[in-house]
Amino acid sequence: MCAAGADACLITANANLFYATGQVVAGYLYIPQQHEPLLFLRRPVGLSGDHIIYVRKPEEIIEILDQRGISPPKCIMLEGDVISHSEWLRYEAVFSGSAVINGTPAIRKARSVKTDFEISLFRRSGIIHSGVYRKIPQLYRRGMTDVELSVEIEREMRLAGSYGIFRVFGQSMEIFIGSLLAGDNAAAPSPYDFALGGKGQHPSLPIGADNTVLREGMAVMVDMGGNFTGYMTDMTRTFSVGKLPEHAYFAHQTALEIQAETARMAVPGAICENLWQRALDIADRNGLKNCFMGISQQAKFVGHGVGIEINELPVLGARSQMTLEKNMMIAIEPKFVIAGVGAVGIENTFWVTDSGGEKITLLDDQIMDLTA
Amino acid sequence: MCAAGADACLITANANLFYATGQVVAGYLYIPQQHEPLLFLRRPVGLSGDHIIYVRKPEEIIEILDQRGISPPKCIMLEGDVISHSEWLRYEAVFSGSAVINGTPAIRKARSVKTDFEISLFRRSGIIHSGVYRKIPQLYRRGMTDVELSVEIEREMRLAGSYGIFRVFGQSMEIFIGSLLAGDNAAAPSPYDFALGGKGQHPSLPIGADNTVLREGMAVMVDMGGNFTGYMTDMTRTFSVGKLPEHAYFAHQTALEIQAETARMAVPGAICENLWQRALDIADRNGLKNCFMGISQQAKFVGHGVGIEINELPVLGARSQMTLEKNMMIAIEPKFVIAGVGAVGIENTFWVTDSGGEKITLLDDQIMDLTA
Repeated sequence: MCAAGADACLITANANLFYATGQVVAGYLYIPQQHEPLLFLRRPVGLSGDHIIYVRKPEEIIEILDQRGISPPKCIMLEGDVISHSEWLRYEAVFSGSAVINGTPAIRKARSVKTDFEISLFRRSGIIHSGVYRKIPQLYRRGMTDVELSVEIEREMRLAGSYGIFRVFGQSMEIFIGSLLAGDNAAAPSPYDFALGGKGQHPSLPIGADNTVLREGMAVMVDMGGNFTGYMTDMTRTFSVGKLPEHAYFAHQTALEIQAETARMAVPGAICENLWQRALDIADRNGLKNCFMGISQQAKFVGHGVGIEINELPVLGARSQMTLEKNMMIAIEPKFVIAGVGAVGIENTFWVTDSGGEKITLLDDQIMDLTA
Repeated sequence: MCAAGADACLITANANLFYATGQVVAGYLYIPQQHEPLLFLRRPVGLSGDHIIYVRKPEEIIEILDQRGISPPKCIMLEGDVISHSEWLRYEAVFSGSAVINGTPAIRKARSVKTDFEISLFRRSGIIHSGVYRKIPQLYRRGMTDVELSVEIEREMRLAGSYGIFRVFGQSMEIFIGSLLAGDNAAAPSPYDFALGGKGQHPSLPIGADNTVLREGMAVMVDMGGNFTGYMTDMTRTFSVGKLPEHAYFAHQTALEIQAETARMAVPGAICENLWQRALDIADRNGLKNCFMGISQQAKFVGHGVGIEINELPVLGARSQMTLEKNMMIAIEPKFVIAGVGAVGIENTFWVTDSGGEKITLLDDQIMDLTA
């Protein structure tokens, strides 16, 4: 807040409210630099605490601050990349005597470095998430479609405690739980900024499984979000229906090499773009640059921060000059799309430590045969 | 657009893009009053058409318009209630010679009246949605929790073709597929602006099922979204575990009376608030005002428009002066929370016609016994 030049911040978006208070509420968390935070709450009814003040609307905030002898801020940070323009105008009017700046970059940066408690939530999520993935071969039945297999995995996720909801930063990003890509559907470009696309079932949600029947020789990539603790681990495993062509296994091993190398580089101080560049170099050296992270449409990143939202800072991608910091939590996801086969590759969630990324989604990384 | 004083509109949000183009894309749909619309597209790659122009960023739009001899708008409408403040600033700079106004109210109003094609999608959704609800008693097993029953319903929804995603208007609204409320959890207030609340499984998503074990004498209210066509029908049914106390059935019958009466009133020209007021009067006359739409926290509406998003215009609620129009599609959802029992009541999706609301979620409205 200081670095950004503000002396107060108003938090109103769900992910930030959960981050700051431990629960989603409908209200306005006012964090002044010189006082205790105050939670101006609309809903739910029935909460109490020293810092909780019920209001019907944000316009009441200034008067309440005044009654408590708290001067209005000189400069207040709002969540400019998240709240709508109309909401911004409303809060700007509430704090009409104050300068108003966009606090989202600072908030996202703060959220990118995790506390010990947050790390413990990721660890727990990693164990549950891996446990569900371990069961996937048992869920496969001959003749299934990609959607049918996805539905059985979703069910296991939910029974294992997933809250289901998949939080993404950015109003144009959306997905249901995650994606399962079989065969050439993995090459279908999508409007969304996920690592890979997929046609989806309908133009209203063009991402992921598209009712492809799973057939011998297909690669099946499962990248489904685990939301077991409010903090999402991100993991992908590649499955095969029987045996894949040799070049698919070669590409998968190349993905594992990229993962090992970028995880090794994931130490505090590393520049994010360098991990992406190194990934690209390894893909190139192995003759796989043209199918790295897609074919007709290629993602320009090999990983990203994870947290309450699946796409937190930093981005391990082109032109990302952000440096890694200790206790960031990042997903590394090198993937290749093999024409006529499907997507192969890997994704794990790593904890950034002084000795590199420590994998917390603990499951073997090799391709698993669904028919074995 | 004319009525709002604008001569162009820029559509960038997913729900509006799907409404206007039939598919979600990453891009900017420019709709000038005097020319054909142009779709400035970022992703996916590979689409083509007379009106499609690929761009990397919105800053290219003005130059392309100029090359085509299209003058910049005098006044452009942006989606001010949906896009972030940062996005608004960016588009405002793109159209720096133009006045910029918030187009969301006009867009939402336009979307509230459905075309014949949209109505056919709702009809299809209503049939599939009802088909899944019909199976619910078969999914019940003795000793189940509310979450476990919900998971089995979710699975049936998905296998019946639901895309899963639940689109809601407003950045602070969120839910996973829908809610199942058993017993006293129905009385738990939530931060969200849905008809009823529920504690949820975790403070990161405090809505709906909370791992209550389903027990004899409990009411189980299922309100799960069906997204089978891109247009969501909304329906609620009440189930019982064995027999409920008599006053719960009485309250349910009162809900059916409210539904019948408000559906009868749902003709073009009706003022929305009047339907709410009538609902409240019937609840009051039956001595049930204190538990209508909640107990400690009561929703102040009895229905709402549905569409690509679950909460479209109009709102059938307090202070809603909007009038119903022919071919609006509305959910009517009178519900009561009975202490020690759970929620009872009903929700159906109705098509507004000259002779009142025509129910399109075709399933019996009575309480169904899960153990029968």
